[in-house]
Amino acid sequence: MPSPHLHLAAFVTAGPGRPGGWRYPDSVPGWLSAKYYQNIARTLEDARFDLAFFADILSVPDRFGGSLDSQLRNGALGSMRLDPLHVLSSMGAVTSHLGLAATVSTTYAQPFTVARSFASLDHLTDGRAAWNVVTSFQEAEARNFNRDEQFPRELRYERADEFLEVTGKLWDSWEDGALVLDTETPLFADPDLVHPIDHKGEFFTVRGPLNVPRPPQGYPVVIQAGASAKGKDFAARWSDVIFCSHASLESAQDFYREIKERAAAHGRDPESVKILPSIAPVVGATSEIARQKYEKLFDLVPPLGGLSTLAYHLDVDLSTFPLDGRLPDVEVPGVEGHYHEVREMTEREGLTLRELGKRYGGRVEGGFIGTPTEIADGLERWFTSEACDGFMLQAPYQPGGFEDFARQVVPELQKRGLFRTEYAGKTLRENLGLARVQPGEWRHRVRRDSAVRA
Amino acid sequence: MPSPHLHLAAFVTAGPGRPGGWRYPDSVPGWLSAKYYQNIARTLEDARFDLAFFADILSVPDRFGGSLDSQLRNGALGSMRLDPLHVLSSMGAVTSHLGLAATVSTTYAQPFTVARSFASLDHLTDGRAAWNVVTSFQEAEARNFNRDEQFPRELRYERADEFLEVTGKLWDSWEDGALVLDTETPLFADPDLVHPIDHKGEFFTVRGPLNVPRPPQGYPVVIQAGASAKGKDFAARWSDVIFCSHASLESAQDFYREIKERAAAHGRDPESVKILPSIAPVVGATSEIARQKYEKLFDLVPPLGGLSTLAYHLDVDLSTFPLDGRLPDVEVPGVEGHYHEVREMTEREGLTLRELGKRYGGRVEGGFIGTPTEIADGLERWFTSEACDGFMLQAPYQPGGFEDFARQVVPELQKRGLFRTEYAGKTLRENLGLARVQPGEWRHRVRRDSAVRA
Ligand SMILES: Cc1cc2nc3c(=O)[nH]c(=O)nc-3n(C[C@H](O)[C@H](O)[C@H](O)COP(=O)(O)O)c2cc1C
Ligand SMILES: Cc1cc2nc3c(=O)[nH]c(=O)nc-3n(C[C@H](O)[C@H](O)[C@H](O)COP(=O)(O)O)c2cc1C
Repeated sequence: MPSPHLHLAAFVTAGPGRPGGWRYPDSVPGWLSAKYYQNIARTLEDARFDLAFFADILSVPDRFGGSLDSQLRNGALGSMRLDPLHVLSSMGAVTSHLGLAATVSTTYAQPFTVARSFASLDHLTDGRAAWNVVTSFQEAEARNFNRDEQFPRELRYERADEFLEVTGKLWDSWEDGALVLDTETPLFADPDLVHPIDHKGEFFTVRGPLNVPRPPQGYPVVIQAGASAKGKDFAARWSDVIFCSHASLESAQDFYREIKERAAAHGRDPESVKILPSIAPVVGATSEIARQKYEKLFDLVPPLGGLSTLAYHLDVDLSTFPLDGRLPDVEVPGVEGHYHEVREMTEREGLTLRELGKRYGGRVEGGFIGTPTEIADGLERWFTSEACDGFMLQAPYQPGGFEDFARQVVPELQKRGLFRTEYAGKTLRENLGLARVQPGEWRHRVRRDSAVRA
Repeated sequence: MPSPHLHLAAFVTAGPGRPGGWRYPDSVPGWLSAKYYQNIARTLEDARFDLAFFADILSVPDRFGGSLDSQLRNGALGSMRLDPLHVLSSMGAVTSHLGLAATVSTTYAQPFTVARSFASLDHLTDGRAAWNVVTSFQEAEARNFNRDEQFPRELRYERADEFLEVTGKLWDSWEDGALVLDTETPLFADPDLVHPIDHKGEFFTVRGPLNVPRPPQGYPVVIQAGASAKGKDFAARWSDVIFCSHASLESAQDFYREIKERAAAHGRDPESVKILPSIAPVVGATSEIARQKYEKLFDLVPPLGGLSTLAYHLDVDLSTFPLDGRLPDVEVPGVEGHYHEVREMTEREGLTLRELGKRYGGRVEGGFIGTPTEIADGLERWFTSEACDGFMLQAPYQPGGFEDFARQVVPELQKRGLFRTEYAGKTLRENLGLARVQPGEWRHRVRRDSAVRA
């Protein structure tokens, strides 16, 4: 067992989540309200979750038929999304230990802005900030940022590498202890401990220093979910936490082994990379009740809502294929992992595209449907068989999906000694069992073939 | 009298404010802590302030001698600054009426990002968001964003114009009522009420729509503080609130008249533009106590801290001139208004550069030093003689400067019927006496010589 106990992250959506989830009777459509997120934050912190996580997207997807129609009608994932950074700050205001993770794209932002944003969040929350690094994979996003098409994946990852190099330098630009606050001398900050970074690279020229002192965690926790070979390599080098999605225990185990090996190959302690596959459990007092709940949820998934979400995940216009035929072989510019998942589903269950939409929208990663004990059994099996270091919990509907899990499954995990009953530390890194990051650590993470420009 | 009562904004700094203020014994150096800002927010809301305002800067200024030394040692304005957007969200979490204003530069950000950020903040705070639009004026900022030098002012304002045009279109891209949330049909959002914007301009190409529904206020409140002719024109067209700085009542009156006329010339109701000059009052139980307090504050201003701040405001390296000579005539790429202020100071008081540093760092705009009654007298005079619609309150030191004013001066203003005792409305616009913005209103604000590209 790689860690003393498993880690739990909650995948909260700042807008509708699973297609159909928002239609569930217990779902509360409070995505525009701070109180909504603050209540979820309290639920998660009471249950001792490591962190709340927000995915993100910089467009309303229109991959399906080049239209917003199916997306908006069905409230498919991504129809609307508040800026996760504001949501995190409001959640931070009512909690004291819960980690706070937001997705920010390296393709459409600048390193000074992003380094400053996460450093500020890390200070204001006493060391609870995490950054999910994405390179974005939607053409619709490019078109909101002055481009007709996306940069190719290769280039996006090169830019991401340099982006993290620059943010690393900026977070280090104030040495620990630079802020002196000696009112007598006066010495507000010691100029000998604050350094311009003078970065000149392929993508960025940034003089620095940052105008924020070194973050409490050294760096915020870095999360990544790359699925391609490039993506996995990037994640193995930079990530503290890796978020992934697996339909089966076996594929989770393969991925786990591969990433830990890649991390070791980069000279990192494999235990310093936490791998959290996503789960979307449906909990009931009896297996039968859980099954009925799942069926009700499944009924509510509009097939076109699911397909529209899938079209956006694959970045492939699925409207061009007959709804009653099979998903053909396609080139996937988007998330390859999701493509493998749905190909497997299609084959195994002999699905038409319409059925696949429903299945994809209503999928339950890992298949965890049952009583708290049954679900805990499943999670324990994954955790003890080197498939993961914990889980990223998606809620089939919000906020009830989090409440059910927090109140019913977490106590069962705690009873088995699989999950904490108290936070061990104050910062997110401490709770994840990760050391505070030392200045310059980013240097080891820059890809080997790149000239480190420090 | 242009408004039934005056408006009060608080200029809070997310880092050290006036050079020397942080050295004052009652000053609390809590800039890295959310609780610090939340306490200030509560103080301001209890006193019924319209809004808390955060200036911003995207560098540690080094204009003075090309070095961070004088800046950091003395804790001059801008030595460190948290990202104001995070600070606002944490303040929003503990208040329900206080307006929340952050500065974001149109020169180093993208309209999709900014429109989304303020729309999100506006939703999460039920209509309390405000954006201080700046074009940035520091070379040091350009150098943190891939450039060796700044874009010329003309170009910055052209970009700003188009930037606001795009954010206007994005805020309108979801019509009011587009979010339907009908779980039966299903109809999450009505695709007929959500529109791509297809903006193609000189600086930006943005397809839209935004992925956030129309903000509660229509648009967030727009604040601006342009001081050049270009800047004033921009402000008269776009601003709901204008922030300015005047050494005398007369110059405030001239500015007030000019801006209201410019606004009228652009077809706007002059009363829909609120002008708030900055004040930094020093309050004491007696005039003598106030004067002593001021002297103590003044003593604590390091001359080089003041000069370093001035060098940054003017964007002129003042270290090249003898400290014991006069400030010579210089070209000012930075804030011209501040230059006029210090030239006047220099002439009137016969100051050396060193003395000017101290005077500039320790200046009290409007000269409000005295008892609550005396200060209220002064403010009343400015307000009733068409010099302003209210004030932007700077604190000589934080948080005490806000507490003194809130507890001592505000009750005096309320007694005179010059200030509210209860919030009239829920949103910031309502409290400022401004109508909710109707779709398309931005069209009237785009500069005349620009082709509106809608
Ligand atoms: C589980 C999971 C979650 C993801 N979340 C996001 C997200 O929130 N925003 C985003 O732009 N991309 C997200 N991605 C996409 C990845 O960051 C990455 O761009 C995508 O997997 C394509 O990776 P590749 O370029 O390595 O193939 C996610 C991917 C996976 C597998
Ligand atoms: C009172 C006042 C406050 C200002 N606050 C900021 C600020 O927070 N950040 C910033 O970049 N510029 C700030 N500015 C600068 C203005 O936005 C503007 O760039 C500057 O006055 C130069 O204007 P001009 O280009 O019209 O001369 C401020 C200016 C004034 C007069």
